[in-house]
Amino acid sequence: MTSTDKLHAFFYPEKVAVIGASATPGKVGHTVVANMLGAGFKGRVIPVNPKGGEIEGLAVTTDIADLPRGLDLAVISVPPQFVIPAIEALGAIGAKSAIVITAGFKEAGKEGYDLEQRIIALCEEHSIALLGPNCLGMMNTSAGVNASFAAGQPNPGSIAFFSQSGALCVAILDWALGANIGFSKFVSLGNKAVLDEADMLDYLNEDDETSVILGYIENVEHGDAFLDAARRTCLNKPVIMIKSGTTAAGAKAASSHTGAIAGSDQTYTAAFHQSGVIRVGDVASLFNLAQAFSSQPLPKGPNLALVTNSGGPGILAADAADRSRLTMAALSQKTIQRLQEFLPSYAAFYNPVDIVGDADAKRYRQTLDVVADDPMVHSILVLLTPTASVQIEKTAEAVIRIAEKSGKPVFACFMGKTRVAGARRMLMEAGIPCYAFPEPAVHAIEAMYEYYLWKNRPEPQYREVERDIEAARALIRDHERRNQPEIVEFEAQQVLKAYGLPTPQTVLARSSDEAVAAAEEIGYPVVLKIASPDISHKSDVGGVKVNLGNATEVMKTFKEITARAQRLRRDAYIAGCLVQEMAPPGVREVIIGFKRDEQFGPMLMFGLGGIYVEIMKDIAFKLAPLSKQDAFEIVREIKSYMLLKGLKGEQPVNFTALEEIVMVMSRLALDLPQVVEAEFNPVLVNHERAIVADVRMTLRV
Amino acid sequence: MTSTDKLHAFFYPEKVAVIGASATPGKVGHTVVANMLGAGFKGRVIPVNPKGGEIEGLAVTTDIADLPRGLDLAVISVPPQFVIPAIEALGAIGAKSAIVITAGFKEAGKEGYDLEQRIIALCEEHSIALLGPNCLGMMNTSAGVNASFAAGQPNPGSIAFFSQSGALCVAILDWALGANIGFSKFVSLGNKAVLDEADMLDYLNEDDETSVILGYIENVEHGDAFLDAARRTCLNKPVIMIKSGTTAAGAKAASSHTGAIAGSDQTYTAAFHQSGVIRVGDVASLFNLAQAFSSQPLPKGPNLALVTNSGGPGILAADAADRSRLTMAALSQKTIQRLQEFLPSYAAFYNPVDIVGDADAKRYRQTLDVVADDPMVHSILVLLTPTASVQIEKTAEAVIRIAEKSGKPVFACFMGKTRVAGARRMLMEAGIPCYAFPEPAVHAIEAMYEYYLWKNRPEPQYREVERDIEAARALIRDHERRNQPEIVEFEAQQVLKAYGLPTPQTVLARSSDEAVAAAEEIGYPVVLKIASPDISHKSDVGGVKVNLGNATEVMKTFKEITARAQRLRRDAYIAGCLVQEMAPPGVREVIIGFKRDEQFGPMLMFGLGGIYVEIMKDIAFKLAPLSKQDAFEIVREIKSYMLLKGLKGEQPVNFTALEEIVMVMSRLALDLPQVVEAEFNPVLVNHERAIVADVRMTLRV
Repeated sequence: MTSTDKLHAFFYPEKVAVIGASATPGKVGHTVVANMLGAGFKGRVIPVNPKGGEIEGLAVTTDIADLPRGLDLAVISVPPQFVIPAIEALGAIGAKSAIVITAGFKEAGKEGYDLEQRIIALCEEHSIALLGPNCLGMMNTSAGVNASFAAGQPNPGSIAFFSQSGALCVAILDWALGANIGFSKFVSLGNKAVLDEADMLDYLNEDDETSVILGYIENVEHGDAFLDAARRTCLNKPVIMIKSGTTAAGAKAASSHTGAIAGSDQTYTAAFHQSGVIRVGDVASLFNLAQAFSSQPLPKGPNLALVTNSGGPGILAADAADRSRLTMAALSQKTIQRLQEFLPSYAAFYNPVDIVGDADAKRYRQTLDVVADDPMVHSILVLLTPTASVQIEKTAEAVIRIAEKSGKPVFACFMGKTRVAGARRMLMEAGIPCYAFPEPAVHAIEAMYEYYLWKNRPEPQYREVERDIEAARALIRDHERRNQPEIVEFEAQQVLKAYGLPTPQTVLARSSDEAVAAAEEIGYPVVLKIASPDISHKSDVGGVKVNLGNATEVMKTFKEITARAQRLRRDAYIAGCLVQEMAPPGVREVIIGFKRDEQFGPMLMFGLGGIYVEIMKDIAFKLAPLSKQDAFEIVREIKSYMLLKGLKGEQPVNFTALEEIVMVMSRLALDLPQVVEAEFNPVLVNHERAIVADVRMTLRV
Repeated sequence: MTSTDKLHAFFYPEKVAVIGASATPGKVGHTVVANMLGAGFKGRVIPVNPKGGEIEGLAVTTDIADLPRGLDLAVISVPPQFVIPAIEALGAIGAKSAIVITAGFKEAGKEGYDLEQRIIALCEEHSIALLGPNCLGMMNTSAGVNASFAAGQPNPGSIAFFSQSGALCVAILDWALGANIGFSKFVSLGNKAVLDEADMLDYLNEDDETSVILGYIENVEHGDAFLDAARRTCLNKPVIMIKSGTTAAGAKAASSHTGAIAGSDQTYTAAFHQSGVIRVGDVASLFNLAQAFSSQPLPKGPNLALVTNSGGPGILAADAADRSRLTMAALSQKTIQRLQEFLPSYAAFYNPVDIVGDADAKRYRQTLDVVADDPMVHSILVLLTPTASVQIEKTAEAVIRIAEKSGKPVFACFMGKTRVAGARRMLMEAGIPCYAFPEPAVHAIEAMYEYYLWKNRPEPQYREVERDIEAARALIRDHERRNQPEIVEFEAQQVLKAYGLPTPQTVLARSSDEAVAAAEEIGYPVVLKIASPDISHKSDVGGVKVNLGNATEVMKTFKEITARAQRLRRDAYIAGCLVQEMAPPGVREVIIGFKRDEQFGPMLMFGLGGIYVEIMKDIAFKLAPLSKQDAFEIVREIKSYMLLKGLKGEQPVNFTALEEIVMVMSRLALDLPQVVEAEFNPVLVNHERAIVADVRMTLRV
């Protein structure tokens, strides 16, 4: 983590050196100088080039050593082999931050990778906040900083944007200029050798000039730092991001391009969701949401009211609302009565409120007054079709007025392009997002409502888990010593005990006599399972038999199971059989597991056993640590939830018991970093209790 | 169905009368006259108004009776009560077609509904092709016809558009003027009293000036006519439609607005899919696809090649391709070798082909030549980021050249807005769709490929089903006479027999002795099921017992079942029990059923029994008649297909047997229109055979 001071020097420099400055227009080293001057920078720009001379009227410094001590920012655009010496020299004069535009590092193979490692070490040593290498640069519109070689200067605005792809920076800059969208900060992250998305989030979180943060990333390398920064930031302002390389083809393109090892897409989805980041799939959505978030307050509930002067567009908007997490507001009787007082009889008084094609601005204004006054309405979308009698600009005024007056989020969809152009400009300038068609308007309101829910969710609460970590660690050390990465049920049972997890009554029987004795004590019927540290998949050797009803069956089965296992796995050490109580009646089988993600740590999963997980892919995921609320959600998010809740006449399973086990699994995953995968499968649950009937763990090899 | 002649008179009139013409600007009756004159109409416009005089320099005719006989088109804009007399008078002079702009009919309640019925009858009597009522009118750009009161004249083009919502016509007209999109025909359907979407499809199918047909509908009233017209048309040119009112909220809005009773959304999805109509969810997609379809050839396969000068946009496009039905083309070794000859070493030679930020137009041209030459490449998307060294317009020329030269579909994504504006115009004018961001480009290519697949699917083949329709009809007549809409298994078995469907060996036993005798003949174990015409849900009375292994069990169970049923349903006639053979081992239970849709007829459904259908909603739908290909698809489209295909070690079920039953069900549904719902549940299937183990049918009440 780079200190805020250094980042402040980076974004708001007083003195900026351009290392590799050039007098030749078209060269990067010239463009950077010209951009800094053209952006209206009030501080001092110092071109550096061993050749000396003058660039754009500025005297050229020939040696980095001659630059002012404590320089705020150096923009480096020299061939790759000169980058390291430049950073060393900058370190020597105590430079606070740098941008390396030069490419040819991590993305260019082994040699470049090593060079980049050297950059990282130098920046650590000299405490330099470094952007890049292999990037376009950075802009801060409010400080007149354009430390980039981009071909354009963005307008000022309250949207911050950072991107791992420099090309996307170029494209979006050009697009935003045409679409009249302004930015506070605009950052090309490049290879993220030092500064990465987490640093940006933390800085932009505190930046009063930024109200919405947009990001494009291809991978996250430091999952924890990202999650922390994202959670903190999202509590304060919305973060909307594209994570590309989501699919097999995309990830292949991503890794050939930037050398990034993309994490699994499900993990990113969980990470974004849990930390409050709004994930979008395409660039158009990024800016659609940015405009909505940066101009309107969040809706304080799901209820959307539509006011329209025509039916078709109203239906399209209602369809979109129904496909979303929003609900169509049910207007109160009082609201409807008030509407009936002045609307013509052929209007539709229910939501969508259709004030019909002959509506003038006054009818819009009166209707909006009444609808906005209904306490059950949380957001309003005003639809206008440019009919003959409509007063387009005056209606825009009515929309602006109700937005100011009501304090509720108000959005407009003025259908069409040419006749509504003036009104759309008026609305946009007044901070009312205005769309040509209904669907993107509804999507924006939905995203804002979901963010409202996330922001106002209760403070996460975590359950303390009493446990004997040392016992679990001892078992793991033992396996590591024996170089045995699989911990099978027979031994993993000790971990279950150490974490106080409910297990079926289980006895290890070393002989058939012991098995019968154990069965008598447990009570018939019982289950027999092969017990061998060398056999992980018990059913592969026919090593599990259920529902054994008497001593004869137990004795016979013990001999069969152990003999068959020994025959099929000659080298295996057979310790005997586990004798286990049978599952109680009326149970469902669920799977609770986790997999450790390289970037984001343990990802918990929950699903119904058998085909539900394997064939139907009906699985819920969350990153550890799971709060009580997370545990509540994960056991209810699957589609087959209805099977746990109980079909007609059935009692629901004990959800609390499942939530407990999920939270213990989360704790276990965090306690034992050597475990890369673990699975309780099945966990048997009925309306009374849940027990972990089988378990398997895999250690890092 | 209205004759093509009449529709030709409608779209290409020589004489157009405006009934209710007005000299007062702003009135609809004036706007229509002004629009006709302003559109450059070469024929004769005849204003009609009892007051006489002159309008826009044209002499006013005072009486419809004085209009030329065989008038081509009359545009009617008079108060509702004068519409009927006007149509009567038009009928008397043999007018061929009419547009009723006036509102206040079906959409305005009972009285209006009756008036509209009268319009329909008159048009039938006089054979008038009538558009509306309650519509905006119609435009035909090539004939200089603007028979509408719209505030604008569309540019000419090859896209036809029809819409049930007049407001959407207004909005799209305004939007298209701004977006520079042209139309061949532009039609506001209104209440669809006479002319509807099917008439439009049939006419536009033959219209050489139309290459793509767009439609917005809220409901379809004549399902068969629509399906026929859509199938015919889609074989010839693409039809892209929005069906709104898809969701509960939307449908509510739809019915309060137009009085349309929306069919279920699943039925529309099936109807569109099976007839080749491309369904989109929003207006932006409608025009995105229209532009692509109207300018580029269809891709002849799924393989998409991306050529880009930057990584990020390439990844975004690859992601979008991976989420679609397209595949990223695997370039041949020869192609890659040819690329290596001239591309710099730091380029990416695999797909996406990244020719890197310093690429000029020549490098684009050379790369496109090689990539387009690869026979495994079916479509090409050229991505350009406006970097410093890129030659934007020259690259556009290279794109245009390769599109002409290769004959393959070529699309462009020139990222940004301002710097690429000129190139985008060049591309669009040359018929190359050009997008600001990658995702919509990929969506368009996907839709075109799916349409290619549909258009080139094999000619549907239907299976002849040998059956005894009369036996089935007799049973139905019998139930109708007895006023008994439920046909329970006990009796529906006769229908199964009449259709030659495989059933378990079944005997009706009237006494416990008969039951034992039957069981002995069938062989143990057997199933007993209550047999009563009055008991539809057998399990509600505990009326099914399986796995009865001997005579004692059969005898006891017979008595139990019949006694309990009689106790619980005192008025029921208990015929006895069905004695049935037990299902063979290793079976799966599936459900095959249908529900008759008011608009589209029988909709077949297929799914796995129990929770798969009820909880997981894992059901496939298709409209009857099902071709062999449809039957092949419906049993494989469900997510739980893997359970039928067999998990590890299991044999697949006999899919052919299932397909047979599905096709017989389709035949049955078409044969017996009195049946509104039927269900074979369960159908038991293993690797050898499938049998219909239970059946229930419901007649129209």
